[in-house]
Amino acid sequence: MTTGKVYLVGAGPGDPELLTLKAARLLRTADAVLHDELVTPAILRLANPAVQLLNVGKRCGTKKITQEEINFLMVSLASGGLQVVRLKGGDPLIFGRAGEEIEGLRRAGIPYEVVPGVTAALGAAAGAGIPLTHRQGPAAVVLVTGHRAADNEEGHWREFARSGATLVIYMPGRNFGEIAHRLRKAGLAGETPCAVVSRATTADQQLHVTTVGELPTAPRLAAPALLIVGEVVRLAATQGECFMTPALDQVLLQATDGKYGELTS
Amino acid sequence: MTTGKVYLVGAGPGDPELLTLKAARLLRTADAVLHDELVTPAILRLANPAVQLLNVGKRCGTKKITQEEINFLMVSLASGGLQVVRLKGGDPLIFGRAGEEIEGLRRAGIPYEVVPGVTAALGAAAGAGIPLTHRQGPAAVVLVTGHRAADNEEGHWREFARSGATLVIYMPGRNFGEIAHRLRKAGLAGETPCAVVSRATTADQQLHVTTVGELPTAPRLAAPALLIVGEVVRLAATQGECFMTPALDQVLLQATDGKYGELTS
Repeated sequence: MTTGKVYLVGAGPGDPELLTLKAARLLRTADAVLHDELVTPAILRLANPAVQLLNVGKRCGTKKITQEEINFLMVSLASGGLQVVRLKGGDPLIFGRAGEEIEGLRRAGIPYEVVPGVTAALGAAAGAGIPLTHRQGPAAVVLVTGHRAADNEEGHWREFARSGATLVIYMPGRNFGEIAHRLRKAGLAGETPCAVVSRATTADQQLHVTTVGELPTAPRLAAPALLIVGEVVRLAATQGECFMTPALDQVLLQATDGKYGELTS
Repeated sequence: MTTGKVYLVGAGPGDPELLTLKAARLLRTADAVLHDELVTPAILRLANPAVQLLNVGKRCGTKKITQEEINFLMVSLASGGLQVVRLKGGDPLIFGRAGEEIEGLRRAGIPYEVVPGVTAALGAAAGAGIPLTHRQGPAAVVLVTGHRAADNEEGHWREFARSGATLVIYMPGRNFGEIAHRLRKAGLAGETPCAVVSRATTADQQLHVTTVGELPTAPRLAAPALLIVGEVVRLAATQGECFMTPALDQVLLQATDGKYGELTS
């Protein structure tokens, strides 16, 4: 029997139309799809109806299935000759644990391929109309996680804050007070603009623009959410201006001239 | 006459199959496409054959058309009722100058929408099999440009080097000696692994894995190229293992077990 193959595929930020052509093709032709919790039903409907669909996601710390078990499943199915799609929200190589899965596949001698996707930061930035870099502003973007088990990341946040880079915080959690405290402790001024983008690029997208100082009182928007921190947030689309879905497509813009002039002066 | 609309669209890292479904749909239906130099003919062939195709790219500092002229074109075409796709390599909001174009569109009251794409860093990482984050390694990724007119970015590189984050350098240029010097000056050890990924995700992809110390003698691979710097580069696919195109699809893997064990010990 020929060995199958495992495709580690990014499902993008939420909108099914933000899958890549390749991801959509692989979903149509795969024998089995192992997907994370965050991959929406609308995306899974793009898969071949005869496919084996397995939810191997973890949510809010509740372990459904361990990483070792996911690796074992992928290796078993591919060894049996199947074409396996391992579907992850966003991009597989950014906070997607693809590293551990690649190691498992290499150990087992299973052919694999990584199919990149639109990572959540880019979906949130597009949905909110925030350029993450700017010729007269930040020349770097930092992608970082808000929570991580048993680590000591405060020091790094200080370095990121000092650098002036735009900071995109994945998985900021529900406790904005704690995130705001860490950002202040890292050296960011209370007036530093930041934006919470919830369910970016979907029909449920919500955007809340605030400052690091006011962040603790920001509304707890629905997960998944992302936090964008930095001067470029001043360029965020105004309410009603930003739209990503056809339903909201016809809304006209309000002029927001000159905002960046203020921030660079 | 109804005003048209401008779509700021990411064309992804190179492989036409890494366009999003939405980008492909908009290319098929647009009246005019204004594209950068780096967008390949294979991608442009996805556009409606009757479309107005305009190359507004700049290359190697040779200005073909100014940013103001691009803005003027977009505004004029959309004001005339056209659906305009402004197509950029990678993602529009990462080093894509979309910020300046959004400001121009807002000023002119032209409806616009940002369609995110797979940024070059993710294409390069996928092509090279390098996870940009790792549960036992870096919890952050920094996206930064190698060259930028009249700036003083050395200080920021020092902060990024200190943070232990994976560094992805866009547009590293041809002078690897200078980039290596900046990385050493920023505090990175000579043995820090790094990888040059050229024309990622295309049939011409080339990967050269080296260290910051050896970088000055690395081969000058064809542009566009990207530099990935950090411990995760030790996890890069071995020669013949990494494949992104159907032609190279059947190559089997070599076991590379235990590499990450070394780097975290």
